[in-house]
Amino acid sequence: MSRFIQIVEVGPRDGLQNEKAVLDPAVRAELVRRLEAAGARRIEAVSFVHPKYVPQMAGAETVMAALPHEAGRSRIGLVLNGRGYDRALTTAVDEVNVSLSATDGFGLKNQGLTIKDQLSMLGEIVARRHNSQTSDVVPSLSATLSCVWGCPFDGEVSVQQVGDLVGAIGALGVGEIALADTIGAGDPWAVTRKVEAARRAAPEARLRLHFHDTRNTGLANAYAGVEAGVDVLDASVGGIGGCPFAPGATGNIATEDLVYMLERAGFQTGYDLDALIETARWIGAALGRPAPSALSRAGCFPRR
Amino acid sequence: MSRFIQIVEVGPRDGLQNEKAVLDPAVRAELVRRLEAAGARRIEAVSFVHPKYVPQMAGAETVMAALPHEAGRSRIGLVLNGRGYDRALTTAVDEVNVSLSATDGFGLKNQGLTIKDQLSMLGEIVARRHNSQTSDVVPSLSATLSCVWGCPFDGEVSVQQVGDLVGAIGALGVGEIALADTIGAGDPWAVTRKVEAARRAAPEARLRLHFHDTRNTGLANAYAGVEAGVDVLDASVGGIGGCPFAPGATGNIATEDLVYMLERAGFQTGYDLDALIETARWIGAALGRPAPSALSRAGCFPRR
Repeated sequence: MSRFIQIVEVGPRDGLQNEKAVLDPAVRAELVRRLEAAGARRIEAVSFVHPKYVPQMAGAETVMAALPHEAGRSRIGLVLNGRGYDRALTTAVDEVNVSLSATDGFGLKNQGLTIKDQLSMLGEIVARRHNSQTSDVVPSLSATLSCVWGCPFDGEVSVQQVGDLVGAIGALGVGEIALADTIGAGDPWAVTRKVEAARRAAPEARLRLHFHDTRNTGLANAYAGVEAGVDVLDASVGGIGGCPFAPGATGNIATEDLVYMLERAGFQTGYDLDALIETARWIGAALGRPAPSALSRAGCFPRR
Repeated sequence: MSRFIQIVEVGPRDGLQNEKAVLDPAVRAELVRRLEAAGARRIEAVSFVHPKYVPQMAGAETVMAALPHEAGRSRIGLVLNGRGYDRALTTAVDEVNVSLSATDGFGLKNQGLTIKDQLSMLGEIVARRHNSQTSDVVPSLSATLSCVWGCPFDGEVSVQQVGDLVGAIGALGVGEIALADTIGAGDPWAVTRKVEAARRAAPEARLRLHFHDTRNTGLANAYAGVEAGVDVLDASVGGIGGCPFAPGATGNIATEDLVYMLERAGFQTGYDLDALIETARWIGAALGRPAPSALSRAGCFPRR
C-alpha cells in the first residue's frame, strides 16, 4: 500500500479562525513556514473575509507578503465572494478556494447568500478567471461545499441535495471539489454514500474531504473516505480550532493523527511526523493551550 | 440498517483501573447501576487481581455483593489466573473474562506468564468449568487476547501470531474471544486483516473487539470492525481511563461516542445517549476531572 494521500493543511485558516487567541500575521506566516518544513505542500494559509467578522484572519495580505512564491508549494486563500476574490488577486496566493454551503441556512448566516446566489457567485469567479487566463499568475481554483453531513440551522442534508450541488459545481468546470463536514455531524457510512453520490454527479472533478472531530468520528470518516477512493484530505496541525456551534469541541481532525493512521497502514503522506508534533506543540504554546491532538500527547507506535 | 451492535461497558474495570483516583467499592457499584439504567446489559464490573498490583480494583467482592443477580443483566469479572477464578466463583459475577496476551513480553509483565503458560492457565479454567457444569451458578466464560495490534514490550504483532493464538483459544471451546488493542496501536486496515484471520482461525467463536483511543484511531477501528462483521464492541463511559504506556493519553473508546456514531448510522445499541452522557459527567466529577469523551462536550447532532 504505497498509495499517496495528499493532506491539505488547514490549521492556519480553519484552525486559527476558531481559536479565541488572535495571532499576528507574522506568527501565522511562521506557522505556514514551519508546516512546510514538516512536509506540507498545500496549505490553507489565509482567508479573505472581512476582519469585522473574523478578526483572527485579519491581515491576510501581510501574511502572504511574508510568503513569496516557491516552486512545489501551494498556499491557498479562502474567499466567500467576489470581493474576497479581488483581494486574493492582489496577493501571492497560489490557489483560491471558494466556499459554498449545501444549505440556505448556513449560506445566509455565513456569507449572506442563498445556495442559488452562492452558485452565481462561484460562476462569476470562474468566468473572471477564465477571461484572465492569459496571465500566468492566475491562481488555481477549487471549491468547498460546507455542511455536507449536517447544518446547524437547517438540520439534515440529503444525499440528493449533495449530489445536485456537486453536479452544479462540477458543471462550472471547477477541478477540485471538497466536501466538508463543517460541524462534525457525519458518520463513516454516510461518508461512503455521499462520496459515491458526489463522484457520480461530477465524475471529472477531483474530490477532497474536510472533516471536523467534533464528535470523535473524524478519523473514522477519513478512513471511509480513503476507502471510497478519495486521495485528498484536509487536516489541521494539533487539531487546533473548534466549532462555533459546539463550545468545548475540538476542531478539524489533527494532521499528525491523520498522518500517523495513514502511514501506520502503509500510505505515504510526505510529512515528517516528529516535525509535525513539534509544530503542534509550538502553535499550542502560541495559543496558550495544549494542542488537542492525540499524537502530541501519546506519541507514535512503534516508539522511535 | 437496524442491525444490533452489543456494546460491553468496561468503564468500571478498564476505565477506573487506569485512573489515578481510587474509588470506593460503593461508588463503583453505583456506576454499574447507573450504566445499567442507561441501557448497559453487559458490564465488566470488577477485576479479581491482587490489590497490591491494582489498588483501583480492590474490593471486587464488595462491589459484587452490592449487585445481586438480575435477569437479562450480565456483570463480568476479569481474571488473570486460577486464583482470580477462585475468587470470581465466590461472587455473583455472571461471566468470567480470562485475559491473555498475544506476546510473551506483555504476558510476563502483566501476569507473570508466557503465552504458553497463559494458554495452560486458560485450559485449566475451561476444564474446571466443564467439570462443575452440574451447578447452575457457573458463570459463562470468555477470553480477551491483549496486544493484538502491538505490544509495548515486544513491538509489532503479526497476523499469523494472532491467528495462531485465536485458533488455540477457540480449540479450547471458548465461545467468545475479544481481540484487544491494549495500547491503541491499531489502524483500521490492520483491524480488517486481523479480524479476518481470527475468524478463519476460530470460526465457531463469536468475536468481540476492544479498542483504546490512545492515538485517536479508536472509532475508525470500531467502524472497520463492524464493517468486517463483528457485532460486539467494548467501550468505557466517558472515555475514562488511560494508558500506562502513554502518559497523557485517553483510555478506551468512549461508550457515548460509539453509541452516537452507530445510532447516527442507523444501528441499534439499546443505550439511552442522554443518560450515558449524564453518567459520564457523574463519573468525571467523582474522578475530579471532566470525562474526555467528545459527546459529553459537544452534544448530539441533530440537537435534541
